This record gives sequence, structure tokens and C-alpha cells, in this order.
Amino acid sequence: MTLAPADPAFLDALSHALPPDTLRPVAPRYLEEPRGRWPGAAARVALPRTAEEAAIIVRAAARARVALVPYGGGTGLVGGQVMPGDAPAPLLVSMERMTAIRATYSDENVIVAEAGAILADVQRAAREADRLFALSLASEGSARIGGLLATNAGGVNVLRYGNARELCLGLEAVLPSGEVWHGLRRLRKDNTGYDLRNLLVGAEGTLGLITAASLRLFPIPAATGTALMVVDGPAAALDLLSRARARVGEAVSAFEIMSRTGYDFLAETAPDLRQPFDTPPEWSVLVELGLPAGLDPADTLESIFAEAHEAGLVSDGLIARSETQAREFWQVRERIPDANRAVGAVASHDISVPLGALPEVIGAGAARLAQIDTFRINCFGHVGDGNLHYNVFPADGRKAADHAHQRDEVSRVIHDLVHEMGGSISAEHGIGRAKVADLERYQDPAKLAAMRAIKSALDPEGIMNPGAVLRSAG
Amino acid sequence: MTLAPADPAFLDALSHALPPDTLRPVAPRYLEEPRGRWPGAAARVALPRTAEEAAIIVRAAARARVALVPYGGGTGLVGGQVMPGDAPAPLLVSMERMTAIRATYSDENVIVAEAGAILADVQRAAREADRLFALSLASEGSARIGGLLATNAGGVNVLRYGNARELCLGLEAVLPSGEVWHGLRRLRKDNTGYDLRNLLVGAEGTLGLITAASLRLFPIPAATGTALMVVDGPAAALDLLSRARARVGEAVSAFEIMSRTGYDFLAETAPDLRQPFDTPPEWSVLVELGLPAGLDPADTLESIFAEAHEAGLVSDGLIARSETQAREFWQVRERIPDANRAVGAVASHDISVPLGALPEVIGAGAARLAQIDTFRINCFGHVGDGNLHYNVFPADGRKAADHAHQRDEVSRVIHDLVHEMGGSISAEHGIGRAKVADLERYQDPAKLAAMRAIKSALDPEGIMNPGAVLRSAG
Repeated sequence: MTLAPADPAFLDALSHALPPDTLRPVAPRYLEEPRGRWPGAAARVALPRTAEEAAIIVRAAARARVALVPYGGGTGLVGGQVMPGDAPAPLLVSMERMTAIRATYSDENVIVAEAGAILADVQRAAREADRLFALSLASEGSARIGGLLATNAGGVNVLRYGNARELCLGLEAVLPSGEVWHGLRRLRKDNTGYDLRNLLVGAEGTLGLITAASLRLFPIPAATGTALMVVDGPAAALDLLSRARARVGEAVSAFEIMSRTGYDFLAETAPDLRQPFDTPPEWSVLVELGLPAGLDPADTLESIFAEAHEAGLVSDGLIARSETQAREFWQVRERIPDANRAVGAVASHDISVPLGALPEVIGAGAARLAQIDTFRINCFGHVGDGNLHYNVFPADGRKAADHAHQRDEVSRVIHDLVHEMGGSISAEHGIGRAKVADLERYQDPAKLAAMRAIKSALDPEGIMNPGAVLRSAG
Repeated sequence: MTLAPADPAFLDALSHALPPDTLRPVAPRYLEEPRGRWPGAAARVALPRTAEEAAIIVRAAARARVALVPYGGGTGLVGGQVMPGDAPAPLLVSMERMTAIRATYSDENVIVAEAGAILADVQRAAREADRLFALSLASEGSARIGGLLATNAGGVNVLRYGNARELCLGLEAVLPSGEVWHGLRRLRKDNTGYDLRNLLVGAEGTLGLITAASLRLFPIPAATGTALMVVDGPAAALDLLSRARARVGEAVSAFEIMSRTGYDFLAETAPDLRQPFDTPPEWSVLVELGLPAGLDPADTLESIFAEAHEAGLVSDGLIARSETQAREFWQVRERIPDANRAVGAVASHDISVPLGALPEVIGAGAARLAQIDTFRINCFGHVGDGNLHYNVFPADGRKAADHAHQRDEVSRVIHDLVHEMGGSISAEHGIGRAKVADLERYQDPAKLAAMRAIKSALDPEGIMNPGAVLRSAG
């Protein structure tokens, strides 16, 4: 069951089965990833233009037991898109020539996009049909639909519209057998057998190659309002969210928390950015409402603020009076990851916990890390989903490299804490190759055994993205 | 790989491994189902009180290759809960002693219920915590959570809140290996490996036995409004829905269509029911809004009606002025299935199609059936989800039995049509034992092969609800 390299004989035979120029040399960009931690290797990159061409590639690889690494926008943060050089050289399969929006059904709230379509382009196509494609995240200018689904991407609108999973109605995919599954359904209800769609979504390319998807659209809310509110702490933030939802229900579109460290990092690394508050608040939230017709966003945000102020949850707030100001507020939130990179993290964690446990996790995390050394913690993100990016930085005047020997211990402490509280060590980024050992440590053993059985059943040769999610059998 | 019957030696050994009175004789009610079509057989019924007891049962069955049939509320409409007498006698596993609401987390919008909890009880527990558990369907007084999840139940609130699948955050389940998967997570985001939860949801008990679930709650909408509107036809109904959603977004909680036949059947079989319109309309919709604070339901419904009237979509309408009146409107919709039963259907179909194809399917269905014979068609249901209960009745003065020889042809015609239009032959009821051959006919071959591979991998002995969803290998 050992995998074979994509050697010249294999590549030569495959190239003759495909249109000219489908197999290409591997440009360096395919072998890099955003964190710069996991260098990849590959023999060639294949660029299919149809599911049928992709199926030819998968069938040849299955016969020859050559590893395939599906490649989307290359924006994944856990090394799922790069196979290391110590394995037999794989064939990358990039979806970049399958970028069509195949159809838009605005009356059905459905759009059908190929796997290589860039998220921002799908958002734009939806807007042109007077609809919203609700997936929204920092890398939307380069992330591609196939990768977003394969990693069940999250982002800032999950609170209201769900993860990538919830936005997917159907898939076209090449299974590891080389068969094409024609599952581009546009149905809200379909109980005809096992949920293969949700199995491929989030499988990070290890159970098949997504070539197209039918995706849910939503009406664009009649009116939108954005505010920054200074909250008394994470517990107050959650209370505020609960009150906002009691008032307007699903109309809370985004609810993001930021700590003082985030503002400090922005001041240090992005002096061009206009800081919204004179004094950076210890804790603040960005609230976005997308309201039905008949409700005024500013009035509604003011009512929410007033009630929360009365209850002692918020002390200050800014309601955007223009789209420009709303964008400025969002800039604060959206530029934090860049500021983090500029400062240089000791370790980053993409965690989620039950909402009720969130304040305790934030407090206990700081206390446990203080036992190791002095750190700065920038904890921010999708608090309404219980999802925090809990990133640990050197104290002022030191560098991440000074803590390199503590990195594993820091992550262990945070992940152990999250696990104790019933949380997840990967809320939205996935497992990739970076967290395979963590998955083995924290995942329920019965589920892990079931995952392995499913992998062996659907991909008996182990050719699909080997080493991602599960340790390679080969 | 042939299955063995649950014979006296097996039952005796198992009963000694369990607390007294866990195995019981099979009362007749366990062997009947609502349609009265598929009589079941079983050697005993097991009533575990914990996941651990359920695991003892599954492990013993796996060793002895005895079939297990999970049993919830017995309300399924496709024979998933009854194994026929021509197979080796199975052991039923009823969840009726696992009915606890284990916990309610109102601040997290989560409730944890055991598989045997009755839906109405879960709804009530949520309401007591000032929250909504949104699953709502005709059998809610007897259907149990485990069965509702195993069949991915739908109902009247799918439009807004999703199917049972979307309401499930985590599971505790006994896998066919006898291992307990402790997956009762309360997380909105968790990308740690394959989506085993969604694989068990909708698998109809063939991949494991659900013993408990963590479920999503929602805030109760601040105000609710209900209306009946007479629409110009199915296309006008969909246009009305689209306009309503442009105005209030997700606040459209339910949108149900009814045809004149439904009103006629109610007049024939339920003379006590107050008919809302003097003349039964050819097509009408029941609209329910659950609105944010600050919007008046009657005003909002009137605005929606006025716009639709202007556009020629609706000709008449009634807005409920009290809760009593709202309940009366709902009675019209909810008593149609009973009226159908009283009239006696030739064939019933639980179909879904892409919304855009819905008017055509309704028209073409009638035309194709007219080629076979004269029928009355009662087509009604969750039109906002593209899901219709397309039920075919004898013409006035004839009986269903007169058409018995045409039943298969009628279903074939409707299912072929739905399949041609990219629809589903089972929108919300599942496959059970009734539609195994239909699944083989209409399902994508690649998906069907993947389903079989998954079943063999997770349940190599084939003990879990054999013959449901997939033809039994034994």
C-alpha cells in the first residue's frame, strides 16, 4: 500500500490522456503557504478544466497509487495544501482553470460555481443578482470555493448564515475511485441516503476532489447598521449578544470581539489606521445588524446600547453614521491579523468553546500561560460563535524566536484547557498537516476509528491528500 | 455474512448482561407503522436506559450477527422502523426509557436531550427557558428526538431554521462496533475531522444508534403574525415568498401552500372545521412571520399583501387578529393529512424540486397522470422549501382500491418527472424500506457506491437496521 512517486512514466502517460498543457511544471508559489512553515514538494501541477478531466487524473493516480494534493487558493493555514518533500512526489491538482459561475438562480436563492471560482467573484456575482453570498473572510480575494468547502471555512457571518457547510446545497466531485458524483442539487430538502455532501465538506480533500458546488444565497438585508461598543469583558459581550438577539433575532449578522492588545498592535504596526476610540478599550465588540424593512439601523443599535448600558454591560459606543465609517470600524477588526503577523506570534490557536465557557477560558488561559512565562495575548474574533483566535505573543521588547522552545508547551496548555471545557482545537481552519497529532490526542477515539474506516473505504489506495487530517497509512 | 436470528440463547445471554427487565416481549404496537403497509417482526424489544447499556446490546449483536432495529416514536412513514418477518428475527432497540432533557443552556441557545425525548417535550423545555426549539411537524406529540435526527425530519419551519440536521450540534451514539461516540458538543464551529454527525443524521439507524443530541435553540421572535393569502397559482406563491423575504429576510418562518382539493377534502371529512374562505380558493398560502421587536406583524403582512396585490399575485387574504384565529388558520393546513387519510390515497409522494421548477412540475404531473386515468390530486406543503406532498386520489365516487393496479405506475410517473427536474423522491420522509428500489433507480451511481462502501466500513456485519436505505447484503 506504499504510494508511488509521480514519476516521468506516470506523467508522460497521463499527459497523453489529457489535453495539451494540462500538466505543468510546479511554480514555487504552489509549494508555499501563508504561515511559511511547511514547505511542499510536487512533481507537476495538473490544471483540469472539467470534472471529466479531473476524473482522468484521479483514475490514473489510483491505478498507479500516486498521491494527489488538491489545490485551491493556497490560503489554508494548517498546511493542508502542501505535501512535504520526504514523501513520494505527488501531483498537485489545481482548480484554477475551473472558475465559471455556471448559473445563478436568484428566484431560488442558488448559485452554481466551479471549485476554482474565487470567493470575491462569487460574492460579486450574487450581488449582481441582488442576492448575498454570505461567506466572508480575510482571504476572500484569493480563496477558492473548492478549498473553502473542503475546509468548511468560517469567517465573520457564521453567526447568522452558518459555515461554508451550511451554505452548500450540492456538490460535483470526483471520488477517489475516479467516478464523478453528479450531486449539484438545488434542494432545501433531500433525504435520499447518506450525507455524502457534508462528508466531503470539511474532509480537506482526503475523500475526493470537489469540482463544483451549488450554494445558498440570501436576500440582501433591507438595511445595515454597524457599531463598536466598549464592553465590560467577554461575559458582558455575550450578555449583550443575547439581548441583541432577543430584540432582532437572526438580524445580528456579525459580532466580533477585540481586546486591547489588538488596538495596541494596530497602533504599533499600522499608524495609518484611524483608531476609533481615544483610549483603546480593554474589550470591545463590533456589531453588525442586517435588518428587515421598517427598522432603522441606528435607532435599533441605540436601543440595544441603551438597554445594555442600563444593565452595566457597555460603557461607550460608536454607531457608524455612513458606509465609510462602517468600513473604518471593520478595518479595525480586519487588520488585526496583519498586525499580529507584523508583531510575530509565539503561537496561534483557532479555538472554539461553548459560549458559556468562554469567559472562563479567556481568564484561565492567561493564568496558565503566566506559569510558563510573560506573554502578551491577543484574543479576538468570532465571539458570537464561541470562536476565538487566541494568539500568544512575546512580551514587549522580546521576539517570538526567544520563545521558540516554549511554543509546543504554550499550545499544549491552551489546547488542553479548551479540550477540558468541551471545546475544539480547530474551530474554522481545519486539521491539515499541522494538527494531525493534536487530532489524535483530543478527538474522541470512537469517532477517530470511524474516520479511519471511512477513509479506507472511500480511498483504499490512500491517494487523496495523504497525510492531511489523518496520518498516512503508507 | 448471513444474519442470525435473535434466538433464545442470544437473548438469554444478553439479558444477563443487562439490568433486569431491559429485554421485553414485543407488544404489537412496535410492529405496526402509520401507513399500515409494512408489518414488522421481532424477537424482543430492548429498552436501554444509558448509552452504555445500548453499547452492551450493540456489541452482543455484532458478535452474534443479530440484526438491531432502532425504534423511536414509530411515526416514520417509509417503514424504517419495521423489519419484515421473512428476515431472521431482529432485536428492536427502543429509546423510550432515555427521555431526559440532560441540560438546557439558554445563554448558549443549546439543549441536550436524550434520543427518547418526545419532540413536544423538547419544545416545551425550550419554551420554559424562553427559547424556541424550531423543529415542528404533525407527529410532534409522539415522534422522538433520536428518530427525528436519524431521519433528518423536516416540517413547517425548515424555511427559516433548517431541517433536523441543521438543528443538531452534537451526538452521543453507539457505533456498529459497539463503541460509544461521545460527541455531545455545543459548538457552532468545529473543524476537527470528518462530519460523522451529519453522516449519522439521515442514516435512518443504519450506521449507528443515536442515544442523545445537543440541539440548537433560537430566541423566540418578538412578535408573530399569521395570514392566509389566495394566490394566483404556484408561480405567484413563489413570487410572493420572494417579495416577503426581500422585505423581512429570515423572518418568514413558514410558507405553506394548499390547493382547492385540500379544502374540499376538509369539507368532506372534517365538517367541524371552520373554513376560512366562503369559496375554497384554487391555491392559497399560509404565511407566518416571526419578527424583530419594533415591527407590527399585521402591518407587515398588510404591506406584503398590498405589494403582491399590486403585482397581481394575490386576490384575497386574511390576517389573523388573534392567537385563536392564527391557530384556526394553522388547523386548515395541519388537518389536511388526516383528511387525506380519510379520503384514501392511491399514492403519496414526498417530493422536492428546485423552486424554479415547481410550477412546471405541478402542471406536468397533472398532465401525465391524466394519461393514466382520472384522479384528484392534493398537492400541498412546504412550498418555500420546494417540498410538496403530491398525493393522488381516486376521482369522486371511486375508491383507492379501484386504482390499486395503477399505484406503481402513478408513483413511477411522478418520480420520473421529479428526477428529470433535478428533484428528490424523498424530501423529508427518508428511504426506509419503502423506497430502497427507488433509491437504486434514481440515486447517482457514484454516490450509491460510496454509500455502500461507508455502510460496509462502519457496519461490516450489517447488523444496524438491515434492509433500510440500502438493500441488505445478507
